[in-house]
Amino acid sequence: MTPPINPQTPAEINPTNIAALIDHTLLKPDAAQVDVLRLCSEAKQFSFASVCLNPCWVSLAVDELAESTVRVCTVIGFPLGANDSQTKIAEAATALSKGARELDVVINIGFLRSRNYHEVYKEIGDLADAAHASGAILKAILETTLLTEEEKSTAARLAVEGKADFVKTSTGFAGGGATVEDVALLRRTVGSKIGVKASGGVRTLAAVLQMIEAGATRIGSSSGVAILNELSAGEAAPTSLASNPGLPASHSGNY
Amino acid sequence: MTPPINPQTPAEINPTNIAALIDHTLLKPDAAQVDVLRLCSEAKQFSFASVCLNPCWVSLAVDELAESTVRVCTVIGFPLGANDSQTKIAEAATALSKGARELDVVINIGFLRSRNYHEVYKEIGDLADAAHASGAILKAILETTLLTEEEKSTAARLAVEGKADFVKTSTGFAGGGATVEDVALLRRTVGSKIGVKASGGVRTLAAVLQMIEAGATRIGSSSGVAILNELSAGEAAPTSLASNPGLPASHSGNY
Repeated sequence: MTPPINPQTPAEINPTNIAALIDHTLLKPDAAQVDVLRLCSEAKQFSFASVCLNPCWVSLAVDELAESTVRVCTVIGFPLGANDSQTKIAEAATALSKGARELDVVINIGFLRSRNYHEVYKEIGDLADAAHASGAILKAILETTLLTEEEKSTAARLAVEGKADFVKTSTGFAGGGATVEDVALLRRTVGSKIGVKASGGVRTLAAVLQMIEAGATRIGSSSGVAILNELSAGEAAPTSLASNPGLPASHSGNY
Repeated sequence: MTPPINPQTPAEINPTNIAALIDHTLLKPDAAQVDVLRLCSEAKQFSFASVCLNPCWVSLAVDELAESTVRVCTVIGFPLGANDSQTKIAEAATALSKGARELDVVINIGFLRSRNYHEVYKEIGDLADAAHASGAILKAILETTLLTEEEKSTAARLAVEGKADFVKTSTGFAGGGATVEDVALLRRTVGSKIGVKASGGVRTLAAVLQMIEAGATRIGSSSGVAILNELSAGEAAPTSLASNPGLPASHSGNY
């Protein structure tokens, strides 16, 4: 009953298909218990792919979502990625033991920029092994806004070699988020081998559709409810991406 | 030969005394090895209190600073603080084993805002115990910009009860930094029991002097070299805080 790990671009744009692509996300450090409970309730109501929240809330979310199809996703080494590998591995083990089934890990950006590729690859590989051994998946966050084009491609290739299940553009904490260009670059680099998650600043249905068109197979957003409400309210909603080749750059509220 | 843990306000404002208050800081996720080496070199040259860097760079900094008086400070659960306690404890243990002697830990802000005070206190206490057992100190980062006045006072009291050695205002990653008002509030709350570290956006000598006047006994800054150069270049440098009661709000370059 869990959503597909690496869904294809949906043939039809409808609330069910779009919700199944969205990681319903709350990563603010000052989120309180009441906010987490609301996130889980919304995720059940709309059947989002997952809730994505900080590690200290995993147990609560697992309890809240026990009877639903919504998976629990948490973040590892977030949002700087500059932890020791052994700390990330310990954090992942704890999250998996508490029931997280998706781990969004920030790669070691400083090591990548120091061309210490072996360490970057090894860390991804060790974490992917841990996730897979628990029936979970791993998304490697590249933080594209901080990287050159060459570094983005290199990082995406290291993620594929390390057996990550997705590459993910952004943490949302580095001053830049997902762009259509970066999603397309990542999709070109990883081919059809793994998923691409667009995250950071994806707040409208128009943005979601642009990211899907560019190759995203998962969307991270804290605006999932607003996006679904846009889609449900739209009187002129497109029924497929192919019928909507010229997506507007900004949200017109007219879907 | 290490600088005092909780220095008093310096009687004389000179480069040596100011440098001894500064944690020379580099926490950008994309900092590369060459940047870390530069940070360590500058810290030795100016005799800063410490270098403050991400955990993956602790071993390198310990090696670089082995023959100096500069301590190695790293960050734990940074910058969101929303990790499991056991992950923070594992991260602290790794850092201490590699030679870090100051740990700047982000408290669990979400638990504080959920009034789960026992967990906040217990986490600080466990981490302080681990630090002290290794001859290290612990600074509790409150992230004041996200808290109400009441929450700031509560958090500071929990830090004292948990045997933290300092309260620290900010991570620098939450959209706000140290303010004179917050430093004064923290100093009023903790009295003379522990230190107060002002961090986040402290980039000029004027700002440093204002923070000291408000009660700060440590300064976190990525602009330590510029601040020291300001002080050294000043022809009309004040020789004491008392002789300079009206500190300018912005840097005039005329100290």
